[in-house]
Amino acid sequence: MLSFVNDYSSTAAPQILEKMQQLGNEHNPGYGADKYCDSAATKIRKACDDPKANIWFLVGGTQTNQTVLSAITPQYAGVVCASNGHINVHEAGAIEATGHKVLALPQHNGKITAEQLDEYCQSFERDANHEHMVYPGVVYISQPTEYGTVYTREELAAISQVSHDHDLPLFVDGARLGMALTADDNDVALPDIARLADVFTIGGTKCGAIFGEAVVFPRGNSPKNFTTLVKQHGALLAKGWLLGLQFDALFTDDLYLKLAKHANEEADKIRKVLFEKNYDVEFVSQTNQIFIVLTNEQAKKLEKNVQLGYMEEVDADHVMMRICTSWATTDEEVDELIKLL
Amino acid sequence: MLSFVNDYSSTAAPQILEKMQQLGNEHNPGYGADKYCDSAATKIRKACDDPKANIWFLVGGTQTNQTVLSAITPQYAGVVCASNGHINVHEAGAIEATGHKVLALPQHNGKITAEQLDEYCQSFERDANHEHMVYPGVVYISQPTEYGTVYTREELAAISQVSHDHDLPLFVDGARLGMALTADDNDVALPDIARLADVFTIGGTKCGAIFGEAVVFPRGNSPKNFTTLVKQHGALLAKGWLLGLQFDALFTDDLYLKLAKHANEEADKIRKVLFEKNYDVEFVSQTNQIFIVLTNEQAKKLEKNVQLGYMEEVDADHVMMRICTSWATTDEEVDELIKLL
Amino acid sequence: MLSFVNDYSSTAAPQILEKMQQLGNEHNPGYGADKYCDSAATKIRKACDDPKANIWFLVGGTQTNQTVLSAITPQYAGVVCASNGHINVHEAGAIEATGHKVLALPQHNGKITAEQLDEYCQSFERDANHEHMVYPGVVYISQPTEYGTVYTREELAAISQVSHDHDLPLFVDGARLGMALTADDNDVALPDIARLADVFTIGGTKCGAIFGEAVVFPRGNSPKNFTTLVKQHGALLAKGWLLGLQFDALFTDDLYLKLAKHANEEADKIRKVLFEKNYDVEFVSQTNQIFIVLTNEQAKKLEKNVQLGYMEEVDADHVMMRICTSWATTDEEVDELIKLL
Amino acid sequence: MLSFVNDYSSTAAPQILEKMQQLGNEHNPGYGADKYCDSAATKIRKACDDPKANIWFLVGGTQTNQTVLSAITPQYAGVVCASNGHINVHEAGAIEATGHKVLALPQHNGKITAEQLDEYCQSFERDANHEHMVYPGVVYISQPTEYGTVYTREELAAISQVSHDHDLPLFVDGARLGMALTADDNDVALPDIARLADVFTIGGTKCGAIFGEAVVFPRGNSPKNFTTLVKQHGALLAKGWLLGLQFDALFTDDLYLKLAKHANEEADKIRKVLFEKNYDVEFVSQTNQIFIVLTNEQAKKLEKNVQLGYMEEVDADHVMMRICTSWATTDEEVDELIKLL
Repeated sequence: MLSFVNDYSSTAAPQILEKMQQLGNEHNPGYGADKYCDSAATKIRKACDDPKANIWFLVGGTQTNQTVLSAITPQYAGVVCASNGHINVHEAGAIEATGHKVLALPQHNGKITAEQLDEYCQSFERDANHEHMVYPGVVYISQPTEYGTVYTREELAAISQVSHDHDLPLFVDGARLGMALTADDNDVALPDIARLADVFTIGGTKCGAIFGEAVVFPRGNSPKNFTTLVKQHGALLAKGWLLGLQFDALFTDDLYLKLAKHANEEADKIRKVLFEKNYDVEFVSQTNQIFIVLTNEQAKKLEKNVQLGYMEEVDADHVMMRICTSWATTDEEVDELIKLL
Repeated sequence: MLSFVNDYSSTAAPQILEKMQQLGNEHNPGYGADKYCDSAATKIRKACDDPKANIWFLVGGTQTNQTVLSAITPQYAGVVCASNGHINVHEAGAIEATGHKVLALPQHNGKITAEQLDEYCQSFERDANHEHMVYPGVVYISQPTEYGTVYTREELAAISQVSHDHDLPLFVDGARLGMALTADDNDVALPDIARLADVFTIGGTKCGAIFGEAVVFPRGNSPKNFTTLVKQHGALLAKGWLLGLQFDALFTDDLYLKLAKHANEEADKIRKVLFEKNYDVEFVSQTNQIFIVLTNEQAKKLEKNVQLGYMEEVDADHVMMRICTSWATTDEEVDELIKLL
Repeated sequence: MLSFVNDYSSTAAPQILEKMQQLGNEHNPGYGADKYCDSAATKIRKACDDPKANIWFLVGGTQTNQTVLSAITPQYAGVVCASNGHINVHEAGAIEATGHKVLALPQHNGKITAEQLDEYCQSFERDANHEHMVYPGVVYISQPTEYGTVYTREELAAISQVSHDHDLPLFVDGARLGMALTADDNDVALPDIARLADVFTIGGTKCGAIFGEAVVFPRGNSPKNFTTLVKQHGALLAKGWLLGLQFDALFTDDLYLKLAKHANEEADKIRKVLFEKNYDVEFVSQTNQIFIVLTNEQAKKLEKNVQLGYMEEVDADHVMMRICTSWATTDEEVDELIKLL
Repeated sequence: MLSFVNDYSSTAAPQILEKMQQLGNEHNPGYGADKYCDSAATKIRKACDDPKANIWFLVGGTQTNQTVLSAITPQYAGVVCASNGHINVHEAGAIEATGHKVLALPQHNGKITAEQLDEYCQSFERDANHEHMVYPGVVYISQPTEYGTVYTREELAAISQVSHDHDLPLFVDGARLGMALTADDNDVALPDIARLADVFTIGGTKCGAIFGEAVVFPRGNSPKNFTTLVKQHGALLAKGWLLGLQFDALFTDDLYLKLAKHANEEADKIRKVLFEKNYDVEFVSQTNQIFIVLTNEQAKKLEKNVQLGYMEEVDADHVMMRICTSWATTDEEVDELIKLL
């Protein structure tokens, strides 16, 4: 059975597994105070062109979003995001569990706009009525978005500007950051993000690592005692060198970008055929996720031979499905899928 | 430099790393719905002699304690534990972060007694004054304790009885459970724990796994929607098969017990010499942790050649240190350490 | 200056203030264990036709919603309500502060429907995808709603049925319950609410009391140790008899209903004129709140002589305002207002 | 039956009840934006000799402690207090419910010392081991303490100094502040507290008001959007003028101090007789609480005619009881009690 169900169904890129095997019986200090974390952080700082960036390595995405957002959101405030934002829909209430409302704005192709954000924030400043409401406290966006679309540098700069105009930090969730950085028409580089965001993540789990998300606080702006906060959220891995080692490998010889680019390219091949065959493809995206609306019959037929991601019922007769490639997707798998379309 | 600083400074037993390497490009379903988790759970159920046990696999200890305890502690209640309990001292307030007070009882050799617990619970039932206080809601113990001591079956049964007499679930933190199960004079087997506890963990991180803690709810008594709670705490590993695979290996051919027994045996050799040389050894323990009080001078001298765990200042001239062995400790390392004593 | 700004700008009905004055130097036990609370509870049980109802008296509305909802919402779940529900918009995130997401459904005249609710709950039961989402855990409605509309007995019964079909308790926020009970075409009596809801409140603050909200758990179904939970939320008034005394007075000789009916009647007079003069009146309501859309000019002119409640900007030229009567509104005040329309 | 059970069993001083009666049908803006709150705040600022102090009025003590402490305690930190501190023992876990551990230090006559505090804080700065522990984040003391003792100005200044040396704000819980300010050998005036503390409360509930606690942030140092935080905790009284009016009365013609002084003087009379008759009086205190150890028999006999506060069982034969006077205690009541001793 073919699988295009998600981008985290294979363990890890061979380069990473090999590094782990080489560790052997080596002793390392715990909790991230090891040479691998050090080396990885140095490489990430360089890639971000930000020598002062503070970097932590955590295990998973929800854990990272929860730990970071609860650390930087004031108690009286909530987290502004697109209505389809991962934190709003698919993290089981992890943000609210830390006491903060998620303030969802209507999404457009998975994005929010600077104008929307500005209007929303201004509404809180216009009158005292809002004192009984939840103030915006942080702006959360994903790059790429949940729908695989990519913010342009202009869009990102505008959102950053508006956020800062309203004294709000900007958090960029980069669970699939590699795929955004390597999308064909992307114009946002890692140093742009480090310059425009106040904190962002570089996702490993979906980009070739076994697991792991790097948290980057640009310009040395990490919250006080952040390691303690990571521990308090149960997010401090005892054997932290496992995370450091992976990110060290990912940021050696552009492995991170190469793995992500591969995922995008395999998706591009599929997208091309889908367009040729007039499939109903949603959202304009060059990253590794493809959302298509199928008739129930089409879906049923396809699923005999290939696992797709189920998104939602569109109406009684139609369903939205996701085709997702990854660093591990092979040309053969894509060819087989294309035959089925 | 020799290291006896802790039992989680080496990556993992070769049997485990090998299994991971063999995964290759295999696709697996996410979040624990894979064949490895299935197989591991089956083996654990068998080892516990509890065919109805519900089992989840999480990544780390604090995360597991936080997720489980917040799921089973009523909102009006706190978690009863020994004053030196890990949740009370070394988890950065992870329990309080979920809204619950930790109710610390004085420890004896790292343990609490059934009598202590009973007296404490009765005080809440004696008068209405306690309505403004935090009720006991769960009983938390560690096996072995933070000081490496092991509850006897009689002690455990009494604590279980008292807990249930007061309608409190009993949680056994088994971060080093292997070492307790294989301690020389231990009389508590896994099925005893499954019978006496309402939830317990089988620690992997300190017992030969790369990482991972198995959570066991005996007799099918898991909280409703526990997977959602795991997700909400950021504790649901995307590539859950990594956890399943490790516990599957650990519960094949008694690997878990063998690794733990090795750690204990290496500690026994050191303990023997410490006693012979009249070192001030604290706590009567047969597990892999040895606590000794040294003069500052002794400590300074030893630390030139061997890393020990720092516990606490005893007085201006003395310090308590921990010697900790693990599955990875070699005979040679122990011999070298003994020469230094 | 006339004021129709809200229904909590006057202290209390004279019958209540008089009772308080009569207390003199009387000693009473604290925290609600006094004879006034006892008597008030007895009268409310009778009015609800529910001899087993458990009753507590709290000070304010947000406090009550927070304390009750956090007590009955499972940790993995959120609170379902209308998008304009008070807990979703005007309580500064008090529900999220206790760890629970507010799950807002689109409102219709301030209401949600049983069909909407059923469809929403079914979506969680249809597929396992929802395991990463926030389950519905409680259904919250207001009677009357935020827009002054009143659920019919049929609507309420249907919502109750659907809630229970999905194992969800139904919470009815009765901050202005008196106004609903005495609205002209209302067919829902207090015993209906006690029969259909799992917990509800009888608001005092907006219905003639100095302050106070009665919490009623029908059929003896209060959560365990609820007094401790009230204390934990800082919601246990030391001099609880002040609350008991007020509700005792309100439930003597139908004072509660008489005060509310007066508010409705004064609103009816105003509504009649508004309709005659073709004002743009929103929502069909017979309770004490009237929502009208005015041009900015109209609003400006009116506000020279009368304070109204500001709701929201409708567009660049229009604004929605609220005219709110209360138990304290006099015929003279209404006549004056009518002259200004 | 005589009652010396507590200092909040009578409604309020006549001067306060009268003011409330005079309100009549007056309209006031809600939530503290009224003239009474304004006037009360002005008078308190003057009494504190701090023209920049920010002042809020809340209803109850636990509510106030919870709202203020959760607003000023960093997420990684806990609240340091004496082991018998109200927040540690008698507030049902209200602090932990907001995510913060209470860090209890051993008490001496109900107090902590600057030395103790310094040593505790230093232990966190000495080594990196503490990164996995809960940092001290705020210092909480009560004036008078739970045992009725009073910090001297020197003690208070030293605690303030140490707190600030370690970057911790100092919170003074003044639930019975009046009694401290008017104790015979007290040398701490309100301006001293305003100068030494970073936030403190002036308790009304136990000092002659119907209810109410004034929160004072000296030097304009209130947390951002504190009103929203008060609302979020369900602690924002709709009819805020009721609080303002009471504190306005209490801070007119020294009523607050006069009421408190009366309570102390009545206690002094009782204390004198207790000493004469060689009762076992605990703690050296000049405020309105007297703690005595009685034989069970003595207690039983006394309680036939007078209600005392039950504190705790001392041993099988002895019990600690509290005799508590208040602004409402009459000379006759004291005389009657003395006859029974």
